[in-house]
Amino acid sequence: MTITITAFEASPDRGRGLARDMPVRWALEEVGQPSKVRLLSFAAMKQPEHLAHHPFGQIPTMEDGALRLFESGAIVFHIAERHPGLLPVDLDARARAIGWMFAALSTVEPVIVERETAFLLEGDKPWHADRLLLLDARVRDRLSRLADRLANADWLDGAFSAGDLLMVSVLRRLDRAALLDAYSNLFAYVERAEKRPAFKRAFDDQHAVYLQSRRAAG
Amino acid sequence: MTITITAFEASPDRGRGLARDMPVRWALEEVGQPSKVRLLSFAAMKQPEHLAHHPFGQIPTMEDGALRLFESGAIVFHIAERHPGLLPVDLDARARAIGWMFAALSTVEPVIVERETAFLLEGDKPWHADRLLLLDARVRDRLSRLADRLANADWLDGAFSAGDLLMVSVLRRLDRAALLDAYSNLFAYVERAEKRPAFKRAFDDQHAVYLQSRRAAG
Repeated sequence: MTITITAFEASPDRGRGLARDMPVRWALEEVGQPSKVRLLSFAAMKQPEHLAHHPFGQIPTMEDGALRLFESGAIVFHIAERHPGLLPVDLDARARAIGWMFAALSTVEPVIVERETAFLLEGDKPWHADRLLLLDARVRDRLSRLADRLANADWLDGAFSAGDLLMVSVLRRLDRAALLDAYSNLFAYVERAEKRPAFKRAFDDQHAVYLQSRRAAG
Repeated sequence: MTITITAFEASPDRGRGLARDMPVRWALEEVGQPSKVRLLSFAAMKQPEHLAHHPFGQIPTMEDGALRLFESGAIVFHIAERHPGLLPVDLDARARAIGWMFAALSTVEPVIVERETAFLLEGDKPWHADRLLLLDARVRDRLSRLADRLANADWLDGAFSAGDLLMVSVLRRLDRAALLDAYSNLFAYVERAEKRPAFKRAFDDQHAVYLQSRRAAG
């Protein structure tokens, strides 16, 4: 049964692979599973038909046989649990890899998304510049602790796992020049992940959707 | 092997059970697993010994035999995976329950924590009042979608699961009078969960720590 996922018809990131279908595409490539992608307009995402799949009206969703899932972390976990390649077999190592999945989404991503939100929704407010200093400090605090833990290892806990896949996906949302650049091991960690053939295939697939949407827009 | 977790020696929530040891305590009670709790001061949380367990210098951590985990969502998942009671046996229902775990931590919690952070770290800033209107709107958007999905069901997907445990833990952080009250089914959902004997035992245990810390402070 081929997995079907949903993604933006016209991604607001202009093909940079920062939307949340990207970690799902990447996970599917890592485990060698084919998939179909159904593209959605912003209007369609807020219609009852999509809200029945995704209560918060976002992408991605996933259909795998009778199972319908939403939430990119949960979809990556589902793929990682049902196909070998993204979680260690050893039970304790597996629990630690899952720990990094939650750490990426629950401890590192929120400060990064809060900073993004400040640009997107409060960039025109009189407080934006002053507040950005606070937000940058919060992001740096998390990056600095993560950099200490990674040290000179290739991946967060031994072999590449779904934990690294989500952590790299989160770090890719950052402005590299402004923030990631100061942590050379994190910068190299992201680049190392982006060199994986599975990442490249997933990136190219979502980039092709962007190019198509640009052509369609004329 | 008894599980050991860490918690605040003196919780900043003044015993209201809003710190992140609470969902872990609750999960342990739901599956009937005994545990030991090691209390940490704020200073101890930033020492190398604790940072070796928790790279971000927070609580809770968990030791289960040779396994050390951090991140409350990951610890709740570990407990739910190794002991019956918090995840359905049916594989698709299990995947959906895990989906709600990620939705709680990755889609609902960030807007709630961002609002908390505004009070804690930006409450004295000139922009606080204007910005609070934006933050409240973001929280209400998520609550409204969640309320639509829950409708008149007792739990998010059939039987009570680790997904409900984390979603309720997240919703409990909200100011109920100001925000949750407008969504009567979500309000009742939280109260329904708080009536579970396992919740009450966990709540009482963390509250006893608070009372002890108050006595120790004289």
